[in-house]
Amino acid sequence: MNKLKILAISGSLRKYSINTGLLKAVVGLGGDDMEITLADISTLPMYNQDLEASFPEVVTNLKKQISEADGVIIATPEFNRSIPGALKNMLDWTSRPYGDATWKGKPVATMGATTSTLGTGLAQYHLKQILLYLNTHVLGQPEFYLNASEKFDKEGNLTDEKTKEHIKKLLDVFGQHIKS
Amino acid sequence: MNKLKILAISGSLRKYSINTGLLKAVVGLGGDDMEITLADISTLPMYNQDLEASFPEVVTNLKKQISEADGVIIATPEFNRSIPGALKNMLDWTSRPYGDATWKGKPVATMGATTSTLGTGLAQYHLKQILLYLNTHVLGQPEFYLNASEKFDKEGNLTDEKTKEHIKKLLDVFGQHIKS
Amino acid sequence: MNKLKILAISGSLRKYSINTGLLKAVVGLGGDDMEITLADISTLPMYNQDLEASFPEVVTNLKKQISEADGVIIATPEFNRSIPGALKNMLDWTSRPYGDATWKGKPVATMGATTSTLGTGLAQYHLKQILLYLNTHVLGQPEFYLNASEKFDKEGNLTDEKTKEHIKKLLDVFGQHIKS
Amino acid sequence: MNKLKILAISGSLRKYSINTGLLKAVVGLGGDDMEITLADISTLPMYNQDLEASFPEVVTNLKKQISEADGVIIATPEFNRSIPGALKNMLDWTSRPYGDATWKGKPVATMGATTSTLGTGLAQYHLKQILLYLNTHVLGQPEFYLNASEKFDKEGNLTDEKTKEHIKKLLDVFGQHIKS
Repeated sequence: MNKLKILAISGSLRKYSINTGLLKAVVGLGGDDMEITLADISTLPMYNQDLEASFPEVVTNLKKQISEADGVIIATPEFNRSIPGALKNMLDWTSRPYGDATWKGKPVATMGATTSTLGTGLAQYHLKQILLYLNTHVLGQPEFYLNASEKFDKEGNLTDEKTKEHIKKLLDVFGQHIKS
Repeated sequence: MNKLKILAISGSLRKYSINTGLLKAVVGLGGDDMEITLADISTLPMYNQDLEASFPEVVTNLKKQISEADGVIIATPEFNRSIPGALKNMLDWTSRPYGDATWKGKPVATMGATTSTLGTGLAQYHLKQILLYLNTHVLGQPEFYLNASEKFDKEGNLTDEKTKEHIKKLLDVFGQHIKS
Repeated sequence: MNKLKILAISGSLRKYSINTGLLKAVVGLGGDDMEITLADISTLPMYNQDLEASFPEVVTNLKKQISEADGVIIATPEFNRSIPGALKNMLDWTSRPYGDATWKGKPVATMGATTSTLGTGLAQYHLKQILLYLNTHVLGQPEFYLNASEKFDKEGNLTDEKTKEHIKKLLDVFGQHIKS
Repeated sequence: MNKLKILAISGSLRKYSINTGLLKAVVGLGGDDMEITLADISTLPMYNQDLEASFPEVVTNLKKQISEADGVIIATPEFNRSIPGALKNMLDWTSRPYGDATWKGKPVATMGATTSTLGTGLAQYHLKQILLYLNTHVLGQPEFYLNASEKFDKEGNLTDEKTKEHIKKLLDVFGQHIKS
């Protein structure tokens, strides 16, 4: 039986990001059913339609990774009650040129970790709106909001066992969502 | 072959509503594949958790209609850049009591007609957020925004042929969405 | 010096609602500067444009209360990641008939209490969108999200001292917001 | 009497952007009361908290422009039903480091031009949510949605007289909003 190929995308660019750390934990928890790869969005230029004339190779490569994946997991921080510019920029690039269907029908799950009050809820729902517009197959439940306090070490590695169980459950449901 | 059973819900309560009119047109355009029924949400009481102790029969009946449908189509006006209170009230009731799974996995498409500028876009995206939370299978594309000017008669009957073609296309895609 | 007249509106209709309880605490914490009155939205009919022909007196009275207030405080629960139908219904009614300016320029602050994860953040931001459309003067900061666990007695009375301090601070900032 | 100093920020980076074109028209329509300057956000790096250690001078300069302005006007395209990554990135940078108050109390008006259906309504309301979080004084009405078809020449210059009148009216209301 083939493993499900999952692409994991972090909305944060900083080195010891808790959202990237969350996805590193996800990579290790896929089990025998899933092969999970962490994407790199840090090298994408800022989207500008004028740049489409010579379409950036990094974008083409990322679009290929998305196309080849059976599902995509996005972990986002919440900046100013929405998603980071870098994450929106990734979505804007990978939906271009006009009429592109890279995201069409793709199963997508969202997650988010934060040390502040609202657990990235506003960011994730902005993200889900955008993903619906891109015609993806968005996972509605379970939602995944992580209060990150004391759950990561200084290098952003997840150390909390309960959260690992939570992730395993999400991956299990997401696997069924992909196959449905 | 069995016809797909579709439940159509209008977010407007007024008699000659263009959104109800839009759904009346939808009912007639389902063709041989779909049996489309218009729901009535006008008799639901205002949601109040205290009323759950003697759960209203009209809500139970509406939940049964939703459960038995293969898919649900919701047409919403935009009031103050969101959905009407009556439509939200229907969603709040039909997701109760706590833990209820009436909407889980249900394919849902949204539509909206208006005579003002933004085509119910804000209302429909609030609605889609709520529907994702209810764990439905929301249709992302095509979006359906109708500028209703000169497309309905005074009693809210759709008279515009181009819009009818638009509806047929939506129903066709929604049928595939349900079967996928 | 005249006291500021504040109208407090709860988005919940149940008797021992924690949001109504929150506002009852607010009423008692206005101090010498504010006279805070709790509105009753439970008797409003479900909005239906056809009813505008004989405009409901309860709506007219509520609009008068809003007009005469120096500021309005709304406390909302979060139902299905948005505001309750009853609260949206109140906003829809009090902004009618077409062109009505009851809310124009009115200082408004939002609050929310919940026992679930996200602290009513999604509901409050839907509410703030609507309030901006209604051309009110929305208080942006401080946000007020209350995790209600163990902070209310069974009849919905606020018993937590720290939350009372939090409310006093909000009222202080809101008073300045009104006078600015 | 001193002129009001207005900073105009475009959410689009392309050369002949209709949103930048809209703001160029705004610059010319400020009249005797306003001195309107167009900001440049194209040189901002992608936000990454690690870069805050040596805070980028371009960001510091932009924050200074915002601080010195009596009001800010933002014109945004709609990309995938939200604001562009570049615009979000600008907001993320100019609200840093943690606790920064550059935007606090700043009067802000939003606009948007598009050739597609929804007139940037979704993008502008995402933007307004973010601006409320940043504690700005957001202009609620009039909303400004421009269907750009046949209203700009190929280099993005606004040629439509009716739209110019619309802009003048917005600037007039925004001037009062700033002074209020």
